[in-house]
Amino acid sequence: MITALGGGVGAAKFLKGISLVLKEPLTVIVNTGDDIQILGLRISPDVDTIVYWLSGIVNREKGWGVREDTFHCLEQLERFGVETWFRLGDRDLAIHFYRTYLRDNGLTPSEITDKVSKAFGINNIKILPMTDDDVETWIETDKGEIHFQEYLVKKEMTPDVKGISVKGIDKAKPAPGVIQAIEEARGIIICPSNPIISIGPILGVKGIREALKRTAAGIIAISPLIGGAPLKGPADRLMRGLGLEVSSAQIARLYEDFLDKIIIDEKDAIEVDKIKSMGIETVVTDTVMSNDEKAEQLATRILRLFEEMT
Amino acid sequence: MITALGGGVGAAKFLKGISLVLKEPLTVIVNTGDDIQILGLRISPDVDTIVYWLSGIVNREKGWGVREDTFHCLEQLERFGVETWFRLGDRDLAIHFYRTYLRDNGLTPSEITDKVSKAFGINNIKILPMTDDDVETWIETDKGEIHFQEYLVKKEMTPDVKGISVKGIDKAKPAPGVIQAIEEARGIIICPSNPIISIGPILGVKGIREALKRTAAGIIAISPLIGGAPLKGPADRLMRGLGLEVSSAQIARLYEDFLDKIIIDEKDAIEVDKIKSMGIETVVTDTVMSNDEKAEQLATRILRLFEEMT
Repeated sequence: MITALGGGVGAAKFLKGISLVLKEPLTVIVNTGDDIQILGLRISPDVDTIVYWLSGIVNREKGWGVREDTFHCLEQLERFGVETWFRLGDRDLAIHFYRTYLRDNGLTPSEITDKVSKAFGINNIKILPMTDDDVETWIETDKGEIHFQEYLVKKEMTPDVKGISVKGIDKAKPAPGVIQAIEEARGIIICPSNPIISIGPILGVKGIREALKRTAAGIIAISPLIGGAPLKGPADRLMRGLGLEVSSAQIARLYEDFLDKIIIDEKDAIEVDKIKSMGIETVVTDTVMSNDEKAEQLATRILRLFEEMT
Repeated sequence: MITALGGGVGAAKFLKGISLVLKEPLTVIVNTGDDIQILGLRISPDVDTIVYWLSGIVNREKGWGVREDTFHCLEQLERFGVETWFRLGDRDLAIHFYRTYLRDNGLTPSEITDKVSKAFGINNIKILPMTDDDVETWIETDKGEIHFQEYLVKKEMTPDVKGISVKGIDKAKPAPGVIQAIEEARGIIICPSNPIISIGPILGVKGIREALKRTAAGIIAISPLIGGAPLKGPADRLMRGLGLEVSSAQIARLYEDFLDKIIIDEKDAIEVDKIKSMGIETVVTDTVMSNDEKAEQLATRILRLFEEMT
């Protein structure tokens, strides 16, 4: 069994690639710190992006949302003067609706994610939210503290980042199956995700980091940086805001206590020595997943690395 | 001031007509017995139909819903195996969302209806829900008791009607302004609405029937029947199910204790004598509102009748 940790578009693209070559069960533990309540709807962006990529209905240009979606409901909502910066497409709305409905009927995020996955015909990858407890990532900016989605979508990553706080993380317990998926895996992949707001919250859930240190599985991370910058998203701004160097070596350092290998892009080959000094092995390759074939190649490479490690 | 009581497509068409000729304030007291909760959304069909007609975005062919709407959200919802018989269009969804959101934030149906009306630019007609308490009309059929919307939409009015129960009506208090609108009006119109499930629940709210008996205003009803049958909807089936004759005379009888005049269609002229025997005056005219002009003519006729009565 393989287990992955991830959140965001990079993870979803990679999981699509690995789903095409996978011959064994894979569990993905997904960040839920991006979750947000909009007009009473419970939205779980990282789970949904993975569901949309795996089921093939994703809008590939944007990297998230549903292909060829319309925004007729949102256009009407503007009439009411409510906040419409979170661009909810009509086809996309269904998953939020269904989640909110099940949630109001007492189902947990794990139970909901399982039902959603099945409804989208996702069978070879089990999607687990990191926790069934509510956790929300907020960004401290020079203009006050705002929800991560507000920072990302509404403010378009423009405010200066002063700090990050994952509200509720102290009390968050791992969702059922999460610790087991780490303990029983033969290989664990840290997806090419934002280390601060996608992987960071997962590692913050009680017991997950300890399980990663303890597991017998080989652990390989894929750096989300290409030439020292993310392909999209605010990884560089957040890392800089926290006083961290924006580099694949820094990413390795964030995972140093449990990581065996890190895959970095050819454009970051200069980082190899720095990473070696942490006792982490580096694999240099082309990590840009511009299509499914390239994501498949990256996945195949990692699966081969796990073979070599056992 | 004029006050109207109504619910359903007939009322909405008539109100559109009167809104085009009106030179004084009009308050409409709307049935909320049709309200239903679908996938966590609070839907108030009679209020919405009036809002859509008055604002001009209604789908005129169907008589309800939003013109040129799409059903992309609903199509996706089918994936989840949830009930999708209530055909929620993408543009239509916005009003249900907004209502549910405000409701969850503690606003009453009156407050919500006021905000919705303003958002749709409706200024010359004040829309009041009959009550701020939750009331739901259920139909006893030969196959068990079902919500009115399920009878109407899902079952397409096919089950035999055995009885009607308006749940919550015993405890329903009139919404703020309802009694005053009846007491202070110079004329009151009972819209061409279903007497059983549109006007019936309004008359069942504590104090409304008494206020109608007490008011100094002239009260004129428009029969919803054309040639002894409704243009659409289940008025005939419901009346028959309750053992009532399906006729404009029967409609007059239902309102006998407070009604001054009833307008009936030319095709029902035969009913005049029967109605006269109740002490109610009949006006016979063409009541089919096939376009705004015809609705305007009907409204103008009623406004003139009020002039004659004072």
